[in-house]
Amino acid sequence: MAIEIEWLSGRGVAAPKGFRVGAARAGIKTQGLDVALLLADEGATCAAVFTTSQVKAAPVLVSAEHLSAGHARAVVVNAGNANCCTGEAGKQNARRMCELAAQKIGLTAPEVLVCSTGIIGHPLPMDKIENALAALELNASDEEAARAFMTTDLVPKFIAARAEIGGQTVTVGGQCKGVGMIGPNMAPLSVPHATMLAFLTTDARVEAPRLQALLERAVARSFNSVTVDGDMSTNDTAILLASGASQVEISDDNEGQFLDLLGAVCRELAKKIARDGEGATRLVQIEVAGTATEADARTIALSIANSPLVKTAIFGRDPNWGRIAMAAGKAGVAFDAAKLSFSLGEVPLFENGEPLPFDLATAERQLANENVFIRLQLGEGDADWTAWTCDFSYEYVKINAEYHT
Amino acid sequence: MAIEIEWLSGRGVAAPKGFRVGAARAGIKTQGLDVALLLADEGATCAAVFTTSQVKAAPVLVSAEHLSAGHARAVVVNAGNANCCTGEAGKQNARRMCELAAQKIGLTAPEVLVCSTGIIGHPLPMDKIENALAALELNASDEEAARAFMTTDLVPKFIAARAEIGGQTVTVGGQCKGVGMIGPNMAPLSVPHATMLAFLTTDARVEAPRLQALLERAVARSFNSVTVDGDMSTNDTAILLASGASQVEISDDNEGQFLDLLGAVCRELAKKIARDGEGATRLVQIEVAGTATEADARTIALSIANSPLVKTAIFGRDPNWGRIAMAAGKAGVAFDAAKLSFSLGEVPLFENGEPLPFDLATAERQLANENVFIRLQLGEGDADWTAWTCDFSYEYVKINAEYHT
Repeated sequence: MAIEIEWLSGRGVAAPKGFRVGAARAGIKTQGLDVALLLADEGATCAAVFTTSQVKAAPVLVSAEHLSAGHARAVVVNAGNANCCTGEAGKQNARRMCELAAQKIGLTAPEVLVCSTGIIGHPLPMDKIENALAALELNASDEEAARAFMTTDLVPKFIAARAEIGGQTVTVGGQCKGVGMIGPNMAPLSVPHATMLAFLTTDARVEAPRLQALLERAVARSFNSVTVDGDMSTNDTAILLASGASQVEISDDNEGQFLDLLGAVCRELAKKIARDGEGATRLVQIEVAGTATEADARTIALSIANSPLVKTAIFGRDPNWGRIAMAAGKAGVAFDAAKLSFSLGEVPLFENGEPLPFDLATAERQLANENVFIRLQLGEGDADWTAWTCDFSYEYVKINAEYHT
Repeated sequence: MAIEIEWLSGRGVAAPKGFRVGAARAGIKTQGLDVALLLADEGATCAAVFTTSQVKAAPVLVSAEHLSAGHARAVVVNAGNANCCTGEAGKQNARRMCELAAQKIGLTAPEVLVCSTGIIGHPLPMDKIENALAALELNASDEEAARAFMTTDLVPKFIAARAEIGGQTVTVGGQCKGVGMIGPNMAPLSVPHATMLAFLTTDARVEAPRLQALLERAVARSFNSVTVDGDMSTNDTAILLASGASQVEISDDNEGQFLDLLGAVCRELAKKIARDGEGATRLVQIEVAGTATEADARTIALSIANSPLVKTAIFGRDPNWGRIAMAAGKAGVAFDAAKLSFSLGEVPLFENGEPLPFDLATAERQLANENVFIRLQLGEGDADWTAWTCDFSYEYVKINAEYHT
């Protein structure tokens, strides 16, 4: 039974009951808010997934430790510095950030998870963070909280929605950041610069193991299916806190409905990342259907989503569909090219291994839309997957070539 | 025992004895030569590897068929059209190209392999190819042959070298093309737009199974280790013809020396591809050492070589070394980040998991050189691998966004 989702305009992580959030300027970034603190009421549960990179930033290692301790209900974050490749001193600084945040709000350090995003390889300016946390108050708006962890993001990305579950209202909020070094593949506890960070909140009551399982399922079809440059970060982290303040208990009976709500919030946040991708002029949605497994469909969808040739063609509004076939073919998934079909928006281009005649102007119009859709049918099974990306423009090169160490 | 290699200035595929080559203009490209034919003397042996893409162009399928027939000694190629995603008609056209070439030189069609490169999804203009082959004569220069299969290449890429093997001279020649859609991973007989094509020739006498094994080994550490955009093509093909005209028989005893010579030619050609990569301003060599397996080292080297963030940083001459750590970490190869060390040219940046102090101006100078070197030590074993790429510039976007269907 599909649930009816009501989007809450202008709201984010503090929309669900039982959350408070603070934001401050530490002066790590050249301007703007760059430290935030999110706190859930006592009794909250927590779940998280982290980058699967072999080079994991210090805050990822410390957060994974604290998560496994089992009582986390706060998150502290800074932007402007990733605290990655900073050796043992980096780990001490990440622990110290948790301690400072814990002191501020009357928790113990293991109750706090920590995230950092920004440049790799520089020591965290702990004095600035200490001062900012001392001055911070838990009265920020959802938008301020979302702004406080931005790096090269052009817009703050936050959202909230609610739905009736068993006759009672459950709310889910979220915020995320990241527009470059975006190709997340996060997994549980696999102890994990512009980096993907997502903070999710809900006032449902969910036991920690169930919360973890639901987060993993929601992340798979959202954040782990978005890419800007395929460059998986050392710091990617998604954290879900459940305050329980709505008194709605999530059980086997209603977890499907809750997952619909959580999944919708995560999906919209993931699309915001792709749309705000460095240099992006268009959001591109790639739907792959008819594979033997979901993993196959995801692999093909991300191969297309990461192809520089596909992405530059979209930027140039060129329906050069051979690049779609190329990117599907190189994915490393076995399929019969004679059963491959695909379309660009409303225009079928290729059917069962044969090219179709099409009107060039109509195809070009599909690429001029704000949202571009590429749909493939492999004819090998019933599984499907959707990925999101953006086009690849001069501006991406400018942002990343002129950003200086 | 290392052999002494003598490079033959200005020579290419016809440098070894027993080869003739012709080039002609069919009018498929807007200008220049676009059809070529390479013929080895009677008794020659042939080996080839093809793209591992699931979407294989018609000429790849037909060439693999002809190779397995066992008597190929000629190659016909056209530029300007990939004959890919062209359905059954495409396969008939590829066969027809072999027949036309075979008639011209008095062979049977299965003695001819065929390659095409250019735009995907358009029918081959067979009348133009037929006229060009009718007019073609086997008297082209090595440079003309190399020019005749260029697409977006700025320069023709060809080379030849000789060495003494058992007191007699063996010569190897080669030409290649491709500057975009470059991320080859070719394999034997796994039947395979700007596309990587390489034609290699030698006057050594090598039995076909040995020739195939040697080609595979040479390709692994050369063409299969070069990338421009990671976009493996539908048409990638490398073909090696051995005329036997030098009378030097390659056996178990001297195949190591022959492989040194063949490998050197393939490696120099692969570097030419990276240096001429679309929009490239620098050649980047990535050396990964200290992994448990060669496959691990290759995976990490190519992960760095394909990273948009690494490549844009090099274009911007920014020693933003965190991106090297990121790209190594995301490769999917398990390693202990606490044992990772790496350097940029002559400047050590990271040692055993800890950042090193370095002089920014000195590091920037490493990136201003024509050839940029990135060297990693994983500390996990004794295997190593080298990959080549180029930087990622505005010009890459321009070439691929403004190239129109």
